[in-house]
Amino acid sequence: MYRQGLESLPTYDVSEKDWKIKLNANESNLNLPPLVEERVIARLGRVAFNRYPDTEMDDLKDLIARNFRLNEENVLVANGSSEILEKLFFAFGGPKRSIVFPMPSFSMYNIYAKLSESEAKVVPLEADYTLDVKKFIQAVQECDAKLAVVCTPNNPTGTIIPLADIEYIAKNIDCPLAVDEAYVEFYGISAASLIEKYPNLIVARTFSKAYGMAAARVGYMLAGKDIIHMIGKACMPYHVNVLSLAAAAIVYQMRDEFVPRIQMYVAERKRMFEALEKIKGITVYPSETNFILIRYENAVALNEYLESLKIGVRSFGNAPGLENCLRITIGTREENDQWLSAVKAFVERS
Amino acid sequence: MYRQGLESLPTYDVSEKDWKIKLNANESNLNLPPLVEERVIARLGRVAFNRYPDTEMDDLKDLIARNFRLNEENVLVANGSSEILEKLFFAFGGPKRSIVFPMPSFSMYNIYAKLSESEAKVVPLEADYTLDVKKFIQAVQECDAKLAVVCTPNNPTGTIIPLADIEYIAKNIDCPLAVDEAYVEFYGISAASLIEKYPNLIVARTFSKAYGMAAARVGYMLAGKDIIHMIGKACMPYHVNVLSLAAAAIVYQMRDEFVPRIQMYVAERKRMFEALEKIKGITVYPSETNFILIRYENAVALNEYLESLKIGVRSFGNAPGLENCLRITIGTREENDQWLSAVKAFVERS
Repeated sequence: MYRQGLESLPTYDVSEKDWKIKLNANESNLNLPPLVEERVIARLGRVAFNRYPDTEMDDLKDLIARNFRLNEENVLVANGSSEILEKLFFAFGGPKRSIVFPMPSFSMYNIYAKLSESEAKVVPLEADYTLDVKKFIQAVQECDAKLAVVCTPNNPTGTIIPLADIEYIAKNIDCPLAVDEAYVEFYGISAASLIEKYPNLIVARTFSKAYGMAAARVGYMLAGKDIIHMIGKACMPYHVNVLSLAAAAIVYQMRDEFVPRIQMYVAERKRMFEALEKIKGITVYPSETNFILIRYENAVALNEYLESLKIGVRSFGNAPGLENCLRITIGTREENDQWLSAVKAFVERS
Repeated sequence: MYRQGLESLPTYDVSEKDWKIKLNANESNLNLPPLVEERVIARLGRVAFNRYPDTEMDDLKDLIARNFRLNEENVLVANGSSEILEKLFFAFGGPKRSIVFPMPSFSMYNIYAKLSESEAKVVPLEADYTLDVKKFIQAVQECDAKLAVVCTPNNPTGTIIPLADIEYIAKNIDCPLAVDEAYVEFYGISAASLIEKYPNLIVARTFSKAYGMAAARVGYMLAGKDIIHMIGKACMPYHVNVLSLAAAAIVYQMRDEFVPRIQMYVAERKRMFEALEKIKGITVYPSETNFILIRYENAVALNEYLESLKIGVRSFGNAPGLENCLRITIGTREENDQWLSAVKAFVERS
């Protein structure tokens, strides 16, 4: 009855419990800065609700293009970087077409591959979650891949791929290379500067993490104009609503207001990293994001204990390479003190 | 380089001019009723921008389900009925799978068919734009269609398919029948009442037309729970943003506030129909929507004349069955007086 493969398509579980401290989705645990929120609400009050999106997307694209010293034709705006990635997998993938990405990484890549009926070719990360670039390039070449995807800083490991390695990959593969930079604001080094040099390079960004706009679902893609045009064809007319576009434009104009909190998240991540390193039995991985991945022998029980305190973190069950791992979003200082105490208390008792 | 067929995919032109009177997209020409707008803005001021969508979609589904005396599991909410239709074509279509729909109808059906790599089988409407139900059923059976789609009241003709005919089709085909009811509030008779009786029946609705929410891009689908589940799998997690969901929930709760304006649009449509009928050389088609389709020998020049007055209507060029046709959205009484005068003046001079 349905298209082949749809019935076996895995679903991404997004159901939530009533958390006291929510650290499971790498959201910003602070709502918009008050001044930004005020301007966003004022802008929403001027929206013509009755009209289809018109120039709002161009306005946002123009702001983004100027920041990167690119042109509007190098920018595509979509419903989160989710829609960007979905359409990239669709446009470059298809039956008997391979798409290469590392593992562990963002679990949606597998779903996008299945949905686009592409062949997913996975390159395992090393034991320390770094990427062996030569192995990656080799995998791309061996399967004559139509698209390569990397996430840096990587979700859920927090590790990065150095910019020189991104450049090396882009230079040595024939297909497009999409760099998912959902967490790049917490790291500071973007591949966007390489777009003019490498026509096969694509950068995907989001307003959902550092800019605290997960509710609005806005992301964008930077690439050469031909790629932007073709991915744009795969997006439906009016695919992004005016409320989100108008809100994102205000946030982008006022992005300096987010610098202090990004610095706070980075400082808190460092503080948590050092504290976790001192807990015997816990392995903590270096992170350049707003979350930390830990490995602990009895992660299942630790997760249950945290749940009992209404602290929600992300457990990966038996996902390959993530056995006994928990991913914890960095919250506010008070929240971090609370989950850290809970983790310490549990481990010391065990 | 790209998936087969993507390069030749037609694009849907949505670029706009600086209209004085905009009558080309079947929008409501009135923004939200003031009381509704006030509550929508107040609700948007309480959004946690930093959080991914959580229970907002369930809240809206619950409101919709109650109105139709259905369950939440019979409702799917999406980015306009556009996303509903795109996903229906995707889920039931695919290579060597046929999808049947009448023509002329909503031009996006052809694009959804191409995008999903399905075979589009088109059933021409009769000369008066009614659907010959027997021909339609025969076409569905002959190609062993996986999905049949009808739009009623039909865009861009304004004509309807009687409910008894919808039921007759649903009863006599083996595949799902999707009924696109984007304009149904201007007509009043929905196929939603038949959903419990016919498990193959699907109804697609939108907030973009009668509810004046085109900017927010919210639509929904009513169907049996198995179909809802499978189409839901084809939608990505968090595909609808919180701002649109929250705004739509307020609008839906306050939908009685829209009744007077819907009555106004219907009355104005009747007034325009009668006035157009009296203009020699113009053929006007009966409409149950918020727009009217006219045929006029020199439609191209008439359209250019209206453009010169900054009145934007929809011209269909040489689209099959729509030669020399213009589709005019019903605006406010003042707007309607203006475009009608312009049309009269042009025709009388010619």
